[in-house]
Amino acid sequence: MLRQGLSPRRVCRWEAGQYVERDDLLVEEAALEISVDACHERHWERISLALAMRTPGDDRHLTLGLLYNEGIIRSLEDIEAYEERLDGARPRVIVRISDRLSPDLSGLSRRLLSTSSCGVCSQTRWDILHTQYPEAPQASPLDPDLLLLLPARMREAQASFQHTGGLHACALFSQNGTLEILCEDVGRHNALDKLIGHSLVHGKLPLAHSILLLSGRVSYELVQKAAMAGIRCIAAIGAPSSLACELADQLKITLVGFLRPPTFNIYTSHSLKSP
Amino acid sequence: MLRQGLSPRRVCRWEAGQYVERDDLLVEEAALEISVDACHERHWERISLALAMRTPGDDRHLTLGLLYNEGIIRSLEDIEAYEERLDGARPRVIVRISDRLSPDLSGLSRRLLSTSSCGVCSQTRWDILHTQYPEAPQASPLDPDLLLLLPARMREAQASFQHTGGLHACALFSQNGTLEILCEDVGRHNALDKLIGHSLVHGKLPLAHSILLLSGRVSYELVQKAAMAGIRCIAAIGAPSSLACELADQLKITLVGFLRPPTFNIYTSHSLKSP
Repeated sequence: MLRQGLSPRRVCRWEAGQYVERDDLLVEEAALEISVDACHERHWERISLALAMRTPGDDRHLTLGLLYNEGIIRSLEDIEAYEERLDGARPRVIVRISDRLSPDLSGLSRRLLSTSSCGVCSQTRWDILHTQYPEAPQASPLDPDLLLLLPARMREAQASFQHTGGLHACALFSQNGTLEILCEDVGRHNALDKLIGHSLVHGKLPLAHSILLLSGRVSYELVQKAAMAGIRCIAAIGAPSSLACELADQLKITLVGFLRPPTFNIYTSHSLKSP
Repeated sequence: MLRQGLSPRRVCRWEAGQYVERDDLLVEEAALEISVDACHERHWERISLALAMRTPGDDRHLTLGLLYNEGIIRSLEDIEAYEERLDGARPRVIVRISDRLSPDLSGLSRRLLSTSSCGVCSQTRWDILHTQYPEAPQASPLDPDLLLLLPARMREAQASFQHTGGLHACALFSQNGTLEILCEDVGRHNALDKLIGHSLVHGKLPLAHSILLLSGRVSYELVQKAAMAGIRCIAAIGAPSSLACELADQLKITLVGFLRPPTFNIYTSHSLKSP
């Protein structure tokens, strides 16, 4: 039986100079909407607090931990009801908190650093998963030998990574493997925003003929950002999530993971080029 | 000259059975408020779009890339003005976008997945950096030999990590090194929320006498969450950011990084225990 939180996928692995198909397991990434029913000035309101991109399987602990860590509840007694709903394909938890707490809803939304929604307009956030992406040409055929050179080229350019080990990096390469831009940040989504901002400022968008290399793992959000910039080929040193692969599939983006010479995996079946 | 984005720090390194002081470089993590002046239905409004926890040094590219990736601007011509301000210790960029765009502000805030603020209430979000933390006792003395055993114990318990390589993990150990809880997620903040939610549900909070072990790097946000749960000792396989160290210092939390037997670094000078 497959453990919850894992998702099987057929991948194409490059090893010993050829492609081999095999079964692989991906980490599951899926959205969960976390809503709170709270009483403020004698008026009950439902707030869509967050659309968490999480690994399923422990939603109750995730939700209660988030509410606790954000200072919304102080103990289990502050919870009056906890409900899990599956509205279509949109899983949701709704937590009713004690009317003793009477939180300021705008303050509540302000405090959430990384997963916040609007505490005032109370709108749900599922539409972020259905962005309109620009039209883009087909991905170019992948050249395995060229691809295998890129991690070393990125590392050479990463002066600060070697000092601290704490920075995420992303790099843009031309189709012949020339490093064009390298950006680093403590947050991987920031590093990619910087790279795309740089391309925008220098009139390089869309990036349909470049290869994007990421130093870490690939989440849904990173594929979204790359797609907005017209990138057709994403390679990463780390693993992609299930949702990252689904989006890359849908947009016909070539997604390479575990790019660790002499091997790598292709997660989307586009544009294989024989050696 | 020190490269921008790096921050020097004196650390205490455990190697060959003793502590050695030495200079180290941390990745800089600092907050930047990103605001947008936009015209909606002939009315100009300033929206505090995000409080980005970023590595300083490339704020213009970061900001423009974020606006582009979120679909707020489509080209450089959509920018009418770009201004960087330092309001006290609160760096801020303000981007005036063309009145041709006339974005729906509530929609704008809804689309931001990981760094969003409230597009309606327009409040700034600096107060998230000044949370009230619960009172907590002093951190217990650190036992280097015990600490060095923990990464292997966490890995043994991480059945799925070995399959996919894509999950962040965090584990809670008792003072004598017994594994108490292990949580995994595609997002490291989710993994920690799950762990603290689990502790809440089982009546284990505050966690003043436990050791928290993180599989990756340590950001400011993770120290914040740990502090809310009363954790006094955080150890990580990866590197901490500058702001993570500052907060741990301020709250007298013991912060260990690069826990890779036979060595580790202590970033906050509390509670050293001689071997």
